[in-house]
Amino acid sequence: MNLAAMAAAVEGAMTVPQFLFILVAILVVAKVMGELAERVGQPAVLGELVAGVILGASVLGIVDSGNAIIHLLAELGVILLLFQIGLETDLKRLLSVGPASAVVAMTGVAVPFIGGYLVAAALGMDTMPAVVAGAALTATSVGITARVLSDLGRLQDPESQIVLGAAVIDDVIGLIILAVVSQVVGGAELTAGSVLTTTALAFGFLIGVLVIGNFIVPRLFDFLAKIGKEETLGTMALALAFLVAYLADAAGSALIIGAFAAGLVLAPTTHAMTVEHNVLRLSMFFVPIFFVSVGAAVDVRTFGDPQVLIIGGALIAMAIIGKFVAGYAPFWFKGKKAVIGVGMIPRGEVGLIFAQMGLTSGVLTLGHFSALTLMVMVTTFMAPPLLKLLFPPRDDVPFQDPGAVAEITTEA
Amino acid sequence: MNLAAMAAAVEGAMTVPQFLFILVAILVVAKVMGELAERVGQPAVLGELVAGVILGASVLGIVDSGNAIIHLLAELGVILLLFQIGLETDLKRLLSVGPASAVVAMTGVAVPFIGGYLVAAALGMDTMPAVVAGAALTATSVGITARVLSDLGRLQDPESQIVLGAAVIDDVIGLIILAVVSQVVGGAELTAGSVLTTTALAFGFLIGVLVIGNFIVPRLFDFLAKIGKEETLGTMALALAFLVAYLADAAGSALIIGAFAAGLVLAPTTHAMTVEHNVLRLSMFFVPIFFVSVGAAVDVRTFGDPQVLIIGGALIAMAIIGKFVAGYAPFWFKGKKAVIGVGMIPRGEVGLIFAQMGLTSGVLTLGHFSALTLMVMVTTFMAPPLLKLLFPPRDDVPFQDPGAVAEITTEA
Repeated sequence: MNLAAMAAAVEGAMTVPQFLFILVAILVVAKVMGELAERVGQPAVLGELVAGVILGASVLGIVDSGNAIIHLLAELGVILLLFQIGLETDLKRLLSVGPASAVVAMTGVAVPFIGGYLVAAALGMDTMPAVVAGAALTATSVGITARVLSDLGRLQDPESQIVLGAAVIDDVIGLIILAVVSQVVGGAELTAGSVLTTTALAFGFLIGVLVIGNFIVPRLFDFLAKIGKEETLGTMALALAFLVAYLADAAGSALIIGAFAAGLVLAPTTHAMTVEHNVLRLSMFFVPIFFVSVGAAVDVRTFGDPQVLIIGGALIAMAIIGKFVAGYAPFWFKGKKAVIGVGMIPRGEVGLIFAQMGLTSGVLTLGHFSALTLMVMVTTFMAPPLLKLLFPPRDDVPFQDPGAVAEITTEA
Repeated sequence: MNLAAMAAAVEGAMTVPQFLFILVAILVVAKVMGELAERVGQPAVLGELVAGVILGASVLGIVDSGNAIIHLLAELGVILLLFQIGLETDLKRLLSVGPASAVVAMTGVAVPFIGGYLVAAALGMDTMPAVVAGAALTATSVGITARVLSDLGRLQDPESQIVLGAAVIDDVIGLIILAVVSQVVGGAELTAGSVLTTTALAFGFLIGVLVIGNFIVPRLFDFLAKIGKEETLGTMALALAFLVAYLADAAGSALIIGAFAAGLVLAPTTHAMTVEHNVLRLSMFFVPIFFVSVGAAVDVRTFGDPQVLIIGGALIAMAIIGKFVAGYAPFWFKGKKAVIGVGMIPRGEVGLIFAQMGLTSGVLTLGHFSALTLMVMVTTFMAPPLLKLLFPPRDDVPFQDPGAVAEITTEA
């Protein structure tokens, strides 16, 4: 009996040594697989996802993505990632591609939703499961695409900006669909008014933060820089990111959209570089936990069932076609449209949340659930290599992980 | 209903927004109180402890130090702190004061244990509660003293090295006492053999890690530096610290001793600076969570009871005298002996674990428990200002937090 075991026994939770063991496994396997991925010319994030599959239920069973603490740390990871992406994003440039982003997002929601529903219904699924399946095809995992574009040193290209803007809009629409679908699944009555309110809140929050934040945040950070040390700025920026994420959730928007907005607001200030430098090392600890937990959520053992393969295959086709078509929706854009479509393909954790909701509410069978996780895995894993193929790494930025790219971007 | 709430509902745990809110409160209040403490000439850690009292059950009730996730993050904080202290410690210099450290540790355990037991018994406590009370007076909170000495830029002084060595030995002895007392409290039979085994394992582990680590670790990190990037070294060093902490626990030693040993092994390598730079930002996030959670564990509302004040006051007197006397045990040492004694005074989280064990096992009444937490609070809060008084900050190192001191120390 020792101090740690004692404390854990008092609290009845995961012991500190167990926690440390899981962290060691995540840090080491994610790092090794990330380096290996780069050696074979792939983005590091692909290696981290594979590390997740290895550490997850499918193989070693060390990382349980459903565990409460792993989930919280993973969420900190994706929040820090989006905050960092926000810090590197020029709002003016993002708004300049706003119309293109909007049509990409809307097309990329409508086509997979309707297509997914029709395919599922055609394969014999009832109306409600087919609706959930269609809904699971709508949302893009902005974390994965943003990380790949960052790995490729391509975050500042117009194609990337369109994808980023569309993914943010997509996330807001995804939230609305999730709210609506979960109400319907729960048997609640659905009114046009409640859908409109959800929509207005979700978009209104983002605009509100940008307007109010642009007024308050630069003054606040100028003041902090005057009275405090460099680390004070870093700590307060972190608190700002977490606070805006918290407020975003409270306002009915998404946590990661709040974190992204906090980054956008800090980006044009003179303190952006200092803040980014401070956030970087923290990201390098938390971000791989997110990607490992996405990988760990996939159980490859369920993919042997023919029904899973048939429904899963049909959904994968719709998932790819639906987003790929969306890339061509901004017909006036002169850049690489294929890059936009492919950038929207990964469903990641968002698709899994839909699948999980369907399973726990009893709407989906275990077979349907597995088909959706297959769709999530294939779309998530195909995007990084495909993006790299269509959108080669920039010559002037060495091919490396987002931390290093961020450093180069801000210090150049 | 949104993604985060959904995910939390599925898992039945603290929601991500709740978690973010608590983190924002800890980051902001700890930073503000830390800066205020420095403004009034006190170490930042004192402000962080006060922040914990404000955020804890006594006042705002935002931070529950017994919460499983707060506990895990706080433990990561103290593990990172001891790893960083280890990185800044010269093993040869530590061993050169070894005999002094050993007599300080042994005197500092024996005097408070016997004194505490006698005082408690004299005030009418039964044998078992009096033994637990005495045991709670033995262990030093190495985290608090190390942090204060680092805040003062005094970590390399011989007095600090003696305190550090004594605190580590103390922690090992504390573990043995805890194991023995919890066996006795649990009604188990106690054999000389089991006590000896526990002792041998606890000390043997530390020596084993230093010997084997000195052989393997420099070679491993030279290899990693050759094939990987700078961040790879940082990540792997972190994994090493967590792994050795995990192994320490498995071997019957303490987590923080493992982390300290990992730091000691890396300290003489050419990569110590790179590693420290990488660990720093992470420490700045996690370490305040530890001190806030120590502060939050104290419930000041229970201190109004006269019986609590009488027993608590007597235990405080013994706690201070016992460790102060220990500072004079190495009679041959020419430096400031008072600094050593005062450095050993804070009981921090270790004293609280004894108190909590006594309460949950039914040996201590709520009054005795409160008296022990009063002892912990007073000894913990008095050490930082007293140490600063006896051991003024070095002129060549500005008075600041450990991160900054660490940077100066390694880059000088």
